[in-house]
Amino acid sequence: MGVVVPLEQDQQNSAGARATLDRVMALSGPSMKGVNTMILSRTGSDVTMIPEVAKHLIDSGGKRLRPILTLLCAEMFGYQGNGHVKLAASVEFMHTATLLHDDVVDESDMRRGKPAARMVWGNQASVLVGDFLLGQAFQMMVEVGSMDALDVLSKASAIIAEGEVLQLTTAKNTNTTEDDYLQVIRAKTAALFSAACEVGPIVAGQTIQGLGEIERAALRSYGMNLGLAFQLVDDALDYGGSAKDLGKDIGDDFRERKVTLPVILAYRRSEGEEKAFWDRVIVAGDQNEGDLERGIALVRDRQGLADTISRAQHYGAVAVDALDGLPASDQKEALLDAVAFCIDRVT
Amino acid sequence: MGVVVPLEQDQQNSAGARATLDRVMALSGPSMKGVNTMILSRTGSDVTMIPEVAKHLIDSGGKRLRPILTLLCAEMFGYQGNGHVKLAASVEFMHTATLLHDDVVDESDMRRGKPAARMVWGNQASVLVGDFLLGQAFQMMVEVGSMDALDVLSKASAIIAEGEVLQLTTAKNTNTTEDDYLQVIRAKTAALFSAACEVGPIVAGQTIQGLGEIERAALRSYGMNLGLAFQLVDDALDYGGSAKDLGKDIGDDFRERKVTLPVILAYRRSEGEEKAFWDRVIVAGDQNEGDLERGIALVRDRQGLADTISRAQHYGAVAVDALDGLPASDQKEALLDAVAFCIDRVT
Repeated sequence: MGVVVPLEQDQQNSAGARATLDRVMALSGPSMKGVNTMILSRTGSDVTMIPEVAKHLIDSGGKRLRPILTLLCAEMFGYQGNGHVKLAASVEFMHTATLLHDDVVDESDMRRGKPAARMVWGNQASVLVGDFLLGQAFQMMVEVGSMDALDVLSKASAIIAEGEVLQLTTAKNTNTTEDDYLQVIRAKTAALFSAACEVGPIVAGQTIQGLGEIERAALRSYGMNLGLAFQLVDDALDYGGSAKDLGKDIGDDFRERKVTLPVILAYRRSEGEEKAFWDRVIVAGDQNEGDLERGIALVRDRQGLADTISRAQHYGAVAVDALDGLPASDQKEALLDAVAFCIDRVT
Repeated sequence: MGVVVPLEQDQQNSAGARATLDRVMALSGPSMKGVNTMILSRTGSDVTMIPEVAKHLIDSGGKRLRPILTLLCAEMFGYQGNGHVKLAASVEFMHTATLLHDDVVDESDMRRGKPAARMVWGNQASVLVGDFLLGQAFQMMVEVGSMDALDVLSKASAIIAEGEVLQLTTAKNTNTTEDDYLQVIRAKTAALFSAACEVGPIVAGQTIQGLGEIERAALRSYGMNLGLAFQLVDDALDYGGSAKDLGKDIGDDFRERKVTLPVILAYRRSEGEEKAFWDRVIVAGDQNEGDLERGIALVRDRQGLADTISRAQHYGAVAVDALDGLPASDQKEALLDAVAFCIDRVT
């Protein structure tokens, strides 16, 4: 179903010079092994459907960026314990539960190029296995024994759900404002990035003296802004991004009639027949051959793509600045790499 | 849609002599006002759909037995604080979230005689508002600040979801054993009753010396067995119970093809054409005029109803015994009343 948009390779930014996640992966690798083991052991259940559904979702990939952030944000202070591994697994379970519930809410058929769990086991299993993972996430947090970490993550849990409900009420509405949209992605995406980062210094503070609100606030802000940049880049990529990601499937948001920032900007800047086009394909859901290509062209013509990317760059810059007061470390460099990588996917 | 089965009034147990919840209601009343206020304030959200859905569900009634148990199990030790009110509201939110998700899983049209939330706002809102309530529940637990209470309730949360998944795999299977079925209701119903009770002495122990594992174990056991009795009585009532509850709508489980204990017993004790009847109406879901009446008659003929009730009485007796070691108090008497009331609904 994906449409491949052939574009010229961007010559000023060759593949060799691109930001990579190499340092992120190398630094977080050893502890991520622990996270993966933890994830597998906590999805074990006598009820065989639970490990099956969980394995399906876990095997289907994703970079596990959120748990990696938790690990880096604890280890950057020299943390040597094991609590951050459990919190990282909790964060990934919260994320996975959200994906399972999202598929039911969005009535998605596919997830990361594989059939969505709900297509294989039904909506029922997706709802309930999501609930199970959420329960397991909270149990792991309890085991770590930090009330502050529980506070941060339980708040995020309620905010994520609130954001998803808000998204329902703005869905398929082409008059959604940029502010409305930012409020949605702040809640549904960035809040978990932020919490994933903030629990790093919290758990590190269990054994290391001198960590406090300054470290928490810095990483909370870093995570929030990285999350916003990440989501905006994803939105841009779905309309083809720029020259990179040749061959990436695009148009999922268009087909699911999602009102993301590229569309919001393109719609607001158009009139007459163009507005009518968007209302037909997004609001009425009447999509025909060639509509996706036209949508992509309109988003580009109206600077919807370029400005979405510039918004993402703005939040990326704020994320970078947020780390300023933290001591130098390999992990801090890796966090900076993560921002560059995120933005680089699309510029 | 309900079928009213006219039965003779049971003469040995007249209405005047029946167990009541009067003492339960009188004792828990003042603190329940606090719980209700808490519930309303915690379902407030700028996202208007959230208070709407929550209000719909809260207004639709139910006795709020679970939060009442939490209050009584804290106040029986002389607890004077406010933490039990927050935990009671948490318990009710967990229960409400389960109902919202259950309606989606069961594809129910009605809930307590009103249209299910999913019929009014869609499956999407039911999934997400359930998630929101769960997040709020954990936030309230964090505010109470007891890691033990968080441990008990987060374990219950995962067990409930696991029980619901297990129920999916046993659904519409007439060969489900009594043991399989007990495992399901232990997880999906009794675990929350048990947790609701156990957090009472935990929160009371924040300010009162000398409470420990003995009190927790007693009330954990009381709650677990009361929960089992409660569910089995519900199952029996759905096939008409005995003489009482004249006019109560029955047959919901039959129509939804749920394999509850009355059916499990009736099926196992039948053969030939009778077994074929159950396989047709439950497994194949082919139900016609007169089938519900025949199902009720078969359940009665095979002692499925009488024996479900005697199982419930067994668990009720265990619940009563579990309280033995606890000091005398009005609240303890009220807990005994709750068992009697539960059993009395059906005998």
